[in-house]
Amino acid sequence: MADLSERFEALERRVQELEDILAIQKLISSYGPAVDGLDATALAEMWAGDGTYDFGIGEPLRGRDNVAKLIDLDSHKTYIAAGCAHVLSAPRIAVDGDRACAVNYSQVFVKDEHGWRADRTGANRWELIRTEQGWKIASRTNSLLDGREGARTLLRR
Amino acid sequence: MADLSERFEALERRVQELEDILAIQKLISSYGPAVDGLDATALAEMWAGDGTYDFGIGEPLRGRDNVAKLIDLDSHKTYIAAGCAHVLSAPRIAVDGDRACAVNYSQVFVKDEHGWRADRTGANRWELIRTEQGWKIASRTNSLLDGREGARTLLRR
Amino acid sequence: MADLSERFEALERRVQELEDILAIQKLISSYGPAVDGLDATALAEMWAGDGTYDFGIGEPLRGRDNVAKLIDLDSHKTYIAAGCAHVLSAPRIAVDGDRACAVNYSQVFVKDEHGWRADRTGANRWELIRTEQGWKIASRTNSLLDGREGARTLLRR
Repeated sequence: MADLSERFEALERRVQELEDILAIQKLISSYGPAVDGLDATALAEMWAGDGTYDFGIGEPLRGRDNVAKLIDLDSHKTYIAAGCAHVLSAPRIAVDGDRACAVNYSQVFVKDEHGWRADRTGANRWELIRTEQGWKIASRTNSLLDGREGARTLLRR
Repeated sequence: MADLSERFEALERRVQELEDILAIQKLISSYGPAVDGLDATALAEMWAGDGTYDFGIGEPLRGRDNVAKLIDLDSHKTYIAAGCAHVLSAPRIAVDGDRACAVNYSQVFVKDEHGWRADRTGANRWELIRTEQGWKIASRTNSLLDGREGARTLLRR
Repeated sequence: MADLSERFEALERRVQELEDILAIQKLISSYGPAVDGLDATALAEMWAGDGTYDFGIGEPLRGRDNVAKLIDLDSHKTYIAAGCAHVLSAPRIAVDGDRACAVNYSQVFVKDEHGWRADRTGANRWELIRTEQGWKIASRTNSLLDGREGARTLLRR
């Protein structure tokens, strides 16, 4: 019985880690729909209260409420009016207890007369934390893959 | 023992939900290969018998056999002859018992003289149901992200 | 008790299969960051020692060390200097014991004066094997979706 109980706890831990990974997948897959759907509440809820977002233009946004203001930027309104999709690739996720790190690509496709053009293509590193409200973004760093070294560094292990 | 039995059942339910999510991921990742691989049988099997597909051109397709006829459309044959990829993004999935809802992006890339051009970029909402043959599509709604409100609504929670 | 023990073993097997799928997702999501991050070690570690990579130009690469030399190719250096992203779609994965097969799309987006252009868009079939170091690539076949039959065949079940 003791043996089964130990095996049971080991299995519970394995299931927990699978749940963690799928929760983080879901979190990251929520970004595009939040910004393209103009859902400021959904966007704010992705970040930890003091989470940050650095996308390489100006100072990093600090705090979930500031991140959520992204959808009010003139540049975002121009994207939305033209027709846009913030498409994020399936991330490589590494969980370490109550912390996790994910790396993936993000692209912004914007409609023009020929179809949809990739106006931004960047590397992303997401630092995630487990909170009482589930996994949240502690920091996201997004850097354009335009030939400079910075973005390539984000992609490495 | 009763305690362990209850914990065991709780763990079984958690594993079931993980299996549900991965089954739905697999289902949605089967769409592109089915249409680009001209595999009408694989395409039909994705939908419930009376499932629907609304992609914003004409009336929604009703019933899996009608959905599978997509690959016989002249527009699809033109895509295939040029070289095309129906690329779907990793979905945000919410399971609720025997029902689930998934939201993601789909793009059709078509070869031209400059590379592959995104000829379509749309928002998708998938309503899924658990059947004896596994998770199937009850309805898929696809709307182009061309600046109109409709597609943005699909993306919201 | 015997009954619970059997149910426990059945659940362990289900968890193992979920772990296998997520491990293969992680493996495939590591490809882009490895090549775009110029991380030859990470690239080599994805393949089995004698694994192969056929991308339709010249003979298939044989052995993980030869695959890792990809990032030294002049064509890759040109991509990197311009700014590039090797974006892979979420794969359809089928596990069969110590073997698995995954099918997805890969695209290479390269920066030009208009944004990022899809310079390559291909179908991929990955044959994977379980090793003592985890799941590894036994063979990857990548074929451009340029209208020819070969790539479409890779996508089929």
